Amino acid sequence: MRTQRGSATTWLAILALSAVGMAAAADGDTFITLGTHGGPVPDARRSEPANALVVGQAVYLVDVGDGAAEQMAKAGLSLQAIKAVFISHLHFDHTGGLFAVLALRDQTSAAGRLRIYGPPGIRETVNGLLAAMKPGAESGYGIPGTHFTAPEDTVEVIEIRGGAQVAIDGFKVSAVENTHYSFPPGSEMRKRFQSLSFRFDLPDRSIVYTGDTGPSDAVTALATGADLLVSELIDAQVAGGTAAPAHGAAELYTPSEVMREHMSKHHLTPDQVGQMASRAKVGRLVITHFVGGRVPGASTDSYIAAIHKWYGGPAEIADDLNRY
Amino acid sequence: MRTQRGSATTWLAILALSAVGMAAAADGDTFITLGTHGGPVPDARRSEPANALVVGQAVYLVDVGDGAAEQMAKAGLSLQAIKAVFISHLHFDHTGGLFAVLALRDQTSAAGRLRIYGPPGIRETVNGLLAAMKPGAESGYGIPGTHFTAPEDTVEVIEIRGGAQVAIDGFKVSAVENTHYSFPPGSEMRKRFQSLSFRFDLPDRSIVYTGDTGPSDAVTALATGADLLVSELIDAQVAGGTAAPAHGAAELYTPSEVMREHMSKHHLTPDQVGQMASRAKVGRLVITHFVGGRVPGASTDSYIAAIHKWYGGPAEIADDLNRY
Repeated sequence: MRTQRGSATTWLAILALSAVGMAAAADGDTFITLGTHGGPVPDARRSEPANALVVGQAVYLVDVGDGAAEQMAKAGLSLQAIKAVFISHLHFDHTGGLFAVLALRDQTSAAGRLRIYGPPGIRETVNGLLAAMKPGAESGYGIPGTHFTAPEDTVEVIEIRGGAQVAIDGFKVSAVENTHYSFPPGSEMRKRFQSLSFRFDLPDRSIVYTGDTGPSDAVTALATGADLLVSELIDAQVAGGTAAPAHGAAELYTPSEVMREHMSKHHLTPDQVGQMASRAKVGRLVITHFVGGRVPGASTDSYIAAIHKWYGGPAEIADDLNRY
Repeated sequence: MRTQRGSATTWLAILALSAVGMAAAADGDTFITLGTHGGPVPDARRSEPANALVVGQAVYLVDVGDGAAEQMAKAGLSLQAIKAVFISHLHFDHTGGLFAVLALRDQTSAAGRLRIYGPPGIRETVNGLLAAMKPGAESGYGIPGTHFTAPEDTVEVIEIRGGAQVAIDGFKVSAVENTHYSFPPGSEMRKRFQSLSFRFDLPDRSIVYTGDTGPSDAVTALATGADLLVSELIDAQVAGGTAAPAHGAAELYTPSEVMREHMSKHHLTPDQVGQMASRAKVGRLVITHFVGGRVPGASTDSYIAAIHKWYGGPAEIADDLNRY
């Protein structure tokens, strides 16, 4: 069967159009917080965790939550521009949008294999997504003799572990294992699964993305001297099990033993974020994966104030589509 | 290994909270256009194709494009409320959000198997998504001895073909094969793949959803006498290959043979939608999966005017999150 080369031309033209009138990527690099919510319960005001590191005309996705493809469109970024994807860990709020990115990319005949870097297990995850794409790719646009590109030809998966360094397109990416999982050292599960934090050493600056983590000397070391630290944050009351993670209705929140351990050990309170930023002497702090107990529209000043008890540099809570 | 029953309670509480302060589902039924864009190139102004039929407190998703979980949150609908999913066909703009829905539902310990109805191939699609969820479900919240529900225990897939009738929760769903694919009758591909339109006969009214289709006597028959017809629409110039599907920049649009056939035979122009609505004598017409050549902010009056040449009833182009 011949492939749909004709449609590739068409969709490429449409994709080019999708950026018309929107801000073009800077010649340097920009970190865009596509989605700043955290957690598997979708939020009406913040999109699921996803970020775009834009270097020149190339896009590198850093976590890909539900709606990432749509958030890219809102940011003026085309699916065709994605050169690689970095996944921090396997929680579905961080991977839920990956199927759409891979599949829509296939349906629009994006050129080249997309490189996907992620922790152990990401290959099995992506292989499942490719298998899911198979019947849709075979039926294509429903015209005899045509089909989409075979899904397995659209990606290249590279599993990495803490300690890995990746040279890519003129910059360096370093990964460390963080404390978002608490499988004991030496255990089978610790070997099978890791949660990662990333450092991007670009020509002009360095950016560290915590992904999800609790307090971690490894992440602090990774962040040391970074120009920009993009960190997760969880409300201290949520972490202590005394408040709901959203909407401030504590009376409906009944923490379980598992959830209490998860919330208290696997995430960072504002004080812990401030301590890390201070110890690492970062140039600027941006909060994403924001799990706050705030009432809609209420001030987030208390979180920044807690951070500033420890860290004197600029700090803010990102909104979706902010550019740094 | 024990399952994370504790976290189920927690996330259920959070999910309950997510609806606080938002519009509750009506006691009757409501059809919500979660995403009104059409096509595999994400749009900054319209979300990918997805709809929610809300009957009492139950939610039935009708196509699940990228960002459907987030659009549900914006509509005040919880993932826990989804009782079934209906997929019209396998194009990835209609299925891109399914991974997030299934995976986030698993991570939040949603109760019960989600029924997924769709055309031939949907089982293979869903099986791939379940395989993709496996490592994330096994690692769970990273606490020894706990994991998410086994993905294969979270869904039940029912493949249906044109002519199928499904009785579900007190209402009836009928499917017909439409003309979005043009595999020849009797061919192997025609046996393997179908694109479906759905009719929902509810206690108080009937709703027909075309999915993607070209002109089709079967769809017109299905729609006959329906109170509400939710139809796709493509700009007539786009269908004729003389305009770009978006943003009106025709000079960058170079239709290929394949794309010309797809656009001209597999979709409906405003005149064709009007003719169908008139022949079927529907009570009301709502346009979604809107592929227009309009300039952002420009009037869509010409599409409605073309429809009204043939159909005298109320007609409008839906925006995301509209309720009917």
